[in-house]
Amino acid sequence: MADKKLWGGRFKEGTSASVEAYTESVSYDWRLYREDIAGSQAHARMLARQGVISGDEAETLCRGLEQVRAEIDAGDFQWKVELEDVHMNIEARLTEIVGPVGGKLHTGRSRNDQIGVDFRLHVNRSLKEWSELLAGLVNVLVHRAKEHQDTLLPGCTHLQPAQAVSLAQHLLAYACMFRRDHERVADCLKRVRVSPLGAAALSGTTYPLDPASAAMDLGFDRAFENSMDAVSDRDFAVEAIGAGSLIMAHLSRLCEELILWANPQFGYIRLPDAYSTGSSIMPQKKNPDICELMRGKTGRVYGSLMGMLTLLKGLPMTYNRDLQEDKEPFFDVDRTVGASVGIMADMLDQVEFVPQAMERALEAGFLNATELADYLVGRGMPFRQAHHASGACVALAESLGCGLAELSVEQMREAGAGVDEDVYAVLSYRASVQRRVSPGGTGPDSVREQLRVFDDWLAQHLG
Amino acid sequence: MADKKLWGGRFKEGTSASVEAYTESVSYDWRLYREDIAGSQAHARMLARQGVISGDEAETLCRGLEQVRAEIDAGDFQWKVELEDVHMNIEARLTEIVGPVGGKLHTGRSRNDQIGVDFRLHVNRSLKEWSELLAGLVNVLVHRAKEHQDTLLPGCTHLQPAQAVSLAQHLLAYACMFRRDHERVADCLKRVRVSPLGAAALSGTTYPLDPASAAMDLGFDRAFENSMDAVSDRDFAVEAIGAGSLIMAHLSRLCEELILWANPQFGYIRLPDAYSTGSSIMPQKKNPDICELMRGKTGRVYGSLMGMLTLLKGLPMTYNRDLQEDKEPFFDVDRTVGASVGIMADMLDQVEFVPQAMERALEAGFLNATELADYLVGRGMPFRQAHHASGACVALAESLGCGLAELSVEQMREAGAGVDEDVYAVLSYRASVQRRVSPGGTGPDSVREQLRVFDDWLAQHLG
Amino acid sequence: MADKKLWGGRFKEGTSASVEAYTESVSYDWRLYREDIAGSQAHARMLARQGVISGDEAETLCRGLEQVRAEIDAGDFQWKVELEDVHMNIEARLTEIVGPVGGKLHTGRSRNDQIGVDFRLHVNRSLKEWSELLAGLVNVLVHRAKEHQDTLLPGCTHLQPAQAVSLAQHLLAYACMFRRDHERVADCLKRVRVSPLGAAALSGTTYPLDPASAAMDLGFDRAFENSMDAVSDRDFAVEAIGAGSLIMAHLSRLCEELILWANPQFGYIRLPDAYSTGSSIMPQKKNPDICELMRGKTGRVYGSLMGMLTLLKGLPMTYNRDLQEDKEPFFDVDRTVGASVGIMADMLDQVEFVPQAMERALEAGFLNATELADYLVGRGMPFRQAHHASGACVALAESLGCGLAELSVEQMREAGAGVDEDVYAVLSYRASVQRRVSPGGTGPDSVREQLRVFDDWLAQHLG
Amino acid sequence: MADKKLWGGRFKEGTSASVEAYTESVSYDWRLYREDIAGSQAHARMLARQGVISGDEAETLCRGLEQVRAEIDAGDFQWKVELEDVHMNIEARLTEIVGPVGGKLHTGRSRNDQIGVDFRLHVNRSLKEWSELLAGLVNVLVHRAKEHQDTLLPGCTHLQPAQAVSLAQHLLAYACMFRRDHERVADCLKRVRVSPLGAAALSGTTYPLDPASAAMDLGFDRAFENSMDAVSDRDFAVEAIGAGSLIMAHLSRLCEELILWANPQFGYIRLPDAYSTGSSIMPQKKNPDICELMRGKTGRVYGSLMGMLTLLKGLPMTYNRDLQEDKEPFFDVDRTVGASVGIMADMLDQVEFVPQAMERALEAGFLNATELADYLVGRGMPFRQAHHASGACVALAESLGCGLAELSVEQMREAGAGVDEDVYAVLSYRASVQRRVSPGGTGPDSVREQLRVFDDWLAQHLG
Repeated sequence: MADKKLWGGRFKEGTSASVEAYTESVSYDWRLYREDIAGSQAHARMLARQGVISGDEAETLCRGLEQVRAEIDAGDFQWKVELEDVHMNIEARLTEIVGPVGGKLHTGRSRNDQIGVDFRLHVNRSLKEWSELLAGLVNVLVHRAKEHQDTLLPGCTHLQPAQAVSLAQHLLAYACMFRRDHERVADCLKRVRVSPLGAAALSGTTYPLDPASAAMDLGFDRAFENSMDAVSDRDFAVEAIGAGSLIMAHLSRLCEELILWANPQFGYIRLPDAYSTGSSIMPQKKNPDICELMRGKTGRVYGSLMGMLTLLKGLPMTYNRDLQEDKEPFFDVDRTVGASVGIMADMLDQVEFVPQAMERALEAGFLNATELADYLVGRGMPFRQAHHASGACVALAESLGCGLAELSVEQMREAGAGVDEDVYAVLSYRASVQRRVSPGGTGPDSVREQLRVFDDWLAQHLG
Repeated sequence: MADKKLWGGRFKEGTSASVEAYTESVSYDWRLYREDIAGSQAHARMLARQGVISGDEAETLCRGLEQVRAEIDAGDFQWKVELEDVHMNIEARLTEIVGPVGGKLHTGRSRNDQIGVDFRLHVNRSLKEWSELLAGLVNVLVHRAKEHQDTLLPGCTHLQPAQAVSLAQHLLAYACMFRRDHERVADCLKRVRVSPLGAAALSGTTYPLDPASAAMDLGFDRAFENSMDAVSDRDFAVEAIGAGSLIMAHLSRLCEELILWANPQFGYIRLPDAYSTGSSIMPQKKNPDICELMRGKTGRVYGSLMGMLTLLKGLPMTYNRDLQEDKEPFFDVDRTVGASVGIMADMLDQVEFVPQAMERALEAGFLNATELADYLVGRGMPFRQAHHASGACVALAESLGCGLAELSVEQMREAGAGVDEDVYAVLSYRASVQRRVSPGGTGPDSVREQLRVFDDWLAQHLG
Repeated sequence: MADKKLWGGRFKEGTSASVEAYTESVSYDWRLYREDIAGSQAHARMLARQGVISGDEAETLCRGLEQVRAEIDAGDFQWKVELEDVHMNIEARLTEIVGPVGGKLHTGRSRNDQIGVDFRLHVNRSLKEWSELLAGLVNVLVHRAKEHQDTLLPGCTHLQPAQAVSLAQHLLAYACMFRRDHERVADCLKRVRVSPLGAAALSGTTYPLDPASAAMDLGFDRAFENSMDAVSDRDFAVEAIGAGSLIMAHLSRLCEELILWANPQFGYIRLPDAYSTGSSIMPQKKNPDICELMRGKTGRVYGSLMGMLTLLKGLPMTYNRDLQEDKEPFFDVDRTVGASVGIMADMLDQVEFVPQAMERALEAGFLNATELADYLVGRGMPFRQAHHASGACVALAESLGCGLAELSVEQMREAGAGVDEDVYAVLSYRASVQRRVSPGGTGPDSVREQLRVFDDWLAQHLG
Repeated sequence: MADKKLWGGRFKEGTSASVEAYTESVSYDWRLYREDIAGSQAHARMLARQGVISGDEAETLCRGLEQVRAEIDAGDFQWKVELEDVHMNIEARLTEIVGPVGGKLHTGRSRNDQIGVDFRLHVNRSLKEWSELLAGLVNVLVHRAKEHQDTLLPGCTHLQPAQAVSLAQHLLAYACMFRRDHERVADCLKRVRVSPLGAAALSGTTYPLDPASAAMDLGFDRAFENSMDAVSDRDFAVEAIGAGSLIMAHLSRLCEELILWANPQFGYIRLPDAYSTGSSIMPQKKNPDICELMRGKTGRVYGSLMGMLTLLKGLPMTYNRDLQEDKEPFFDVDRTVGASVGIMADMLDQVEFVPQAMERALEAGFLNATELADYLVGRGMPFRQAHHASGACVALAESLGCGLAELSVEQMREAGAGVDEDVYAVLSYRASVQRRVSPGGTGPDSVREQLRVFDDWLAQHLG
């Protein structure tokens, strides 16, 4: 047979094996076995409530399914690729256990609604885990922020030092991002937690099912409203992966900063040994591998989003086999997002911040040049002239290799800045931060207020 | 100077012109002028309330801005590329009008928070338009579904006829998708409607601002909480484009079906002339151009999503010029999504459905083969044997070029199916649809209930 | 330790295990073991040639590596996650086998250039497989085209019947696409087949290496030119995945058509049983699962491309750990593209085309309406009037449920078309195709010429 | 009419206007007018050569088209949206000028092959411009590298200082990337430079055309081989955008480094004023706006690639209106890539490198720690002990705030490193770089050889 083929190629094993390998899903959808069994048990109980099967039959089915689950949990289950997917593998074993009544389980159901149930239960569980992990990460950020309300560093725009900020303010900016991710996941869950059970192949069935009660039984918020939509909708997976993409975008930004800060030119942080690697050859090295890897993994999550959207483009109603390709991207995203958020929380908890290095950078960045100009304006000098005088002081200090506050009053005067001794209070970074009184800014009151709000939020959301 | 360059290339006009062209944004961000002016007026009023400027100054500024708006509205405004962006163009003109007090407008503000205000107000307005258009599209679908509760067509899985469904059920599946899009947009708006005004460059300011009152004044739900997050957050734009991507995914599915249905092999619909094109050469042609174009436009929206996500990857805090690239993708998505949803509603409103063609397809698809098998099971034949007998009848009818219901009782009996006259009731597609009693299915009660729920929803959401 | 953490989360097993799991690559890069061993052997031989190690040492190393390969081939090798990657696993085992001399293997080498060698050898091998598979697919298409030079079907634009074409012409359009893919892969290989061996960590080494001879030994075309580029370049992987994306785009187009053609409304093809699935419930169904799945898999390949591009955005020189994320996407693309091209060739080889159904579609599409108009023009009627008369004949035939050629001369005359008996020669689809004499068109001479060119190409490229 | 609609929405102007706006392309495809006219002239000449029209007619058409071009060049042409696209606009005006003979131009042609001609000519021209610009950028890099063969800086892996490298080596790594881009563009051009003229609507025509001679006339390499492929192939645009994506990836990497290097903690470069912006408020700031913007624009190019690939997924043969969406992405990519490469060349030409800052960074990074360990090994100390002693010296120097070479012999001995005065020769960065003798590495001979090869390449490729 194979030798009659016009082409040789890879598939020496003949058609059936290559096609089987191409179409099977059990190598990855076995992960859904808990959800598949829960869904089947709920279906059986509902069938009994509606009088479609007897109560005894339902009990037999549920008990049999319980046994299958125990076998899988224990690692005693033989997954068979020739049975294609998780559903058929479980159903085949169930029928071995309970006999012909096993065939009744599929009454008024199809694999089209069944896989929807399994997948939605799974995404639901994953997103709840993400929520917990995100709250955990926010908690670490808030905790570290509390420690570092008085630590100052250059706040950057354009990666150029712009204004001195509190490290707490900087860390809380990330806390805001991850809290927003938490909200987005919660919104997404509203559309995940809808049961498609009862849609059958595409049009409902002739059995008097009660989808609402089955949905309740499974912990869904509600049942589907339209059977054709129910079996072809994968919006929830796209939306979940979209939420994951933004989580990774935020992590990639944080990783970028940690990588910069770990570079000796910055030296703002020391990474814990467990989260960096040295070099067996170069004694001076300490590489921020975890941060780099996490930044890199952003790509695979974005890619999964693009893959899912491509998948859906132009698909006609209702179920098409293309949809089988929905699970691997989500599984991969789930693993990546979950591990990344968790590891970031753990790593940040142990990062050592180096306030002295941050302070040195403040001096080197002349971040108080604006303060000097404002001081001169306050003394009646026109702004344009004050700006110029301040610039001249910066140039002088730069040439002397010192900060502005290390210039003498005389030196500043010579540079055109008519200052008195009180200028040093103005040039203090600490003072400049304290003067930022506007709500939401880096001033101490604002930071305290932000921390208070986060404490309330964490009290509600921390597992 | 230019002739000293090592390379020749395109930029004959010299450095400054090419750099100016590369960096300017006014050629597209002028669209934000209404929002920019509203934001500035709110800022001026807030400054006055907080005593930072006088009430008279605020009034002068607001009136001056009003005049600028009038000039732009009237097309009398001269946009200048050398003034880079919408903010500088407006501010420059304002200062011409009101004199030096114009300079006070920027007190306690930066372009970093200003562009955030403008962009968020704009996205807010766009998403509200999307919501209205989506509700309009749902309305058309519901209306057409009401007309076609009794029109039957083959419901497909795998693009193979599977079971007869009501056209209403089919159309309502799409109504469910677009209603879900409406919900998603509403969720996204919660994160759009947050004012960054008062974050200033990145760390707040030394002026006693009141961001909450300015937010209220502008119709936002609330003010930012952290200034560094406020000036660097573009999540809302990503999320909006993500919502737009799913809207386009749904439209592309619907377009795919309309294109199929307009093909003469199907012939399920006749497109209104305004939404199709003929051929000056081929008299028989009627091309579904709009549907094709809309399906194609899905790509550009997905692309914008990918572009925005790429943009954000690895960006350190806080504002980086990369973020300037956020507006063009959203503007393009807004235009595409808005026009597509609107045109689809208009087109669907005028599409002519051809029930006879759908009915012919039901026959050709032998969609009642399952019904025949079930009938035989009901008369005591084992399922496997019934399945086989039904298959034999299908083969016979296929060879005779007719439907199952056109076979005589004798013919079916010869094919192994022990039927009586009552079989014809079973073979009726209409009867088969009516027997689908499960909630959410294609049965008439279920469809009526879905329509009722949609009527309630539309009563709330239709503008 | 773990209980001191601020967050709970998933990682109960403690820091080291979760970090190890996050950073290890051996679970997927073990696939590179053959390339890794070949690379190490070539490196050892080169070191000996350059006098850096002795000939005996090189031989010992090569023999030891041979033994490692044999162990892995036989499945006797114990991969250890704590040894992180394929390189360390093999080196550790090598040192067990050959003793301390094993340590000399890494002289003048780093994992940075080593992984480059492994990965490039692997991509090279994969792309050569793709080339063979593509040539095989072209061969099937050409073979089927030869069988169906006289089979006519409606050629579509806008999925509307436009002009009758030969099925051969239609199939050869796809052959052109896959031949172009073959060329693209060949171009990509030029940039894959460059050896980075000798770049060491990033800057070369103090040993007098000979990268060119090692490159030759490994079958590369040439050695790298710049060490920093050599260890950070992943363009070749992006380009390969890009070529794979276009292959999938082409396959998705072909799948779309096969799915349409298998729909009973078209009925142009019957899929071989091995490439479609029936329904245990619905006797009439035959689903084109393989085609749907293949169309769906397009998404995952596009997604990998996007992931790789995202990965590279903004990475500073030279090696960054982000780059570890390059292999899984390629492996997945390789598996998907290879299997898809192979299965498509096999399936197309066995597809049954149904010329009668195609012919019926020609009639239903009135594809000869243009011919009729041209005939009338040829007899002196102004084009506009001829177009109108032809349209009237179409309308008449449509109302009678027949094709144009089934109208009588009288009927056509009544419709305004002044025809004679010779019109029937014109209305023949076969004649219309034969009149298409332009090169590259669907006429018989053009098709024969295309087949001839393909035969030449296949003689060169078929394995 | 409009008030009969079920929905209100945006489209107050009524159906026809909104549909016209949705489907028109002339607002962007007018850019193709030169190519459209050249294509039409070549077509007319070919028709005359083949005897389909007379020589006089061809001349009239060509002259008329010349006049149209002159009008457009002069800005005197009135583009009309109601004429949809560039083709119809030009043809309508041509017919005004030359009268009815204008109608003959379209003989044996269709907009389907016409747009292919226009677009391919345009992409061809753009890619040639990219090639010139890339060669120009390589030239600047090579030139700057020549100036800085003796400038040393820390070569990084993981953004951690790893080994001292020559700035020339670092810059040449980028030159390698852009040279590779140049090759990729050349390969792409082979598939761009294929003429589809003569494919007509989809199947060729009944006229005896000569596509090969028309292709030659237009400067294409060859004519299409299969008409159906010819009108539906957009691979060339995807491939061009893919090449553009890698160019942007490379630019984004370079921009990232320039942004880092411009940060005062690094201070490796001073950006020319024309390529950076200051702050009217903060006197110390100099923002690398161009680099940030360029890095950000990477996203829009990636997005266009994804959009084009999405577009093609699942499209059946042959021309579908979806394909109209191919031009805007390419136009945008062309503009972005062209401007970015050109501006980068110009900017790099003017960047001021700061060798002293790079040298300071070498000291701070203890990049000679490996050299010290090697020195100790050379004197007979076991490697492990040498590594430890070197590490102790690093710790000592770090605590003293100096570099290794500033420690005295006694201090190093106390730290366990048994050194003599000759150690200082070893600790010299310059010496360490000179010892890197392997080809392709950072050693002076290797760099000179690379420069020589680039000079040859530039002699061939610089415009």
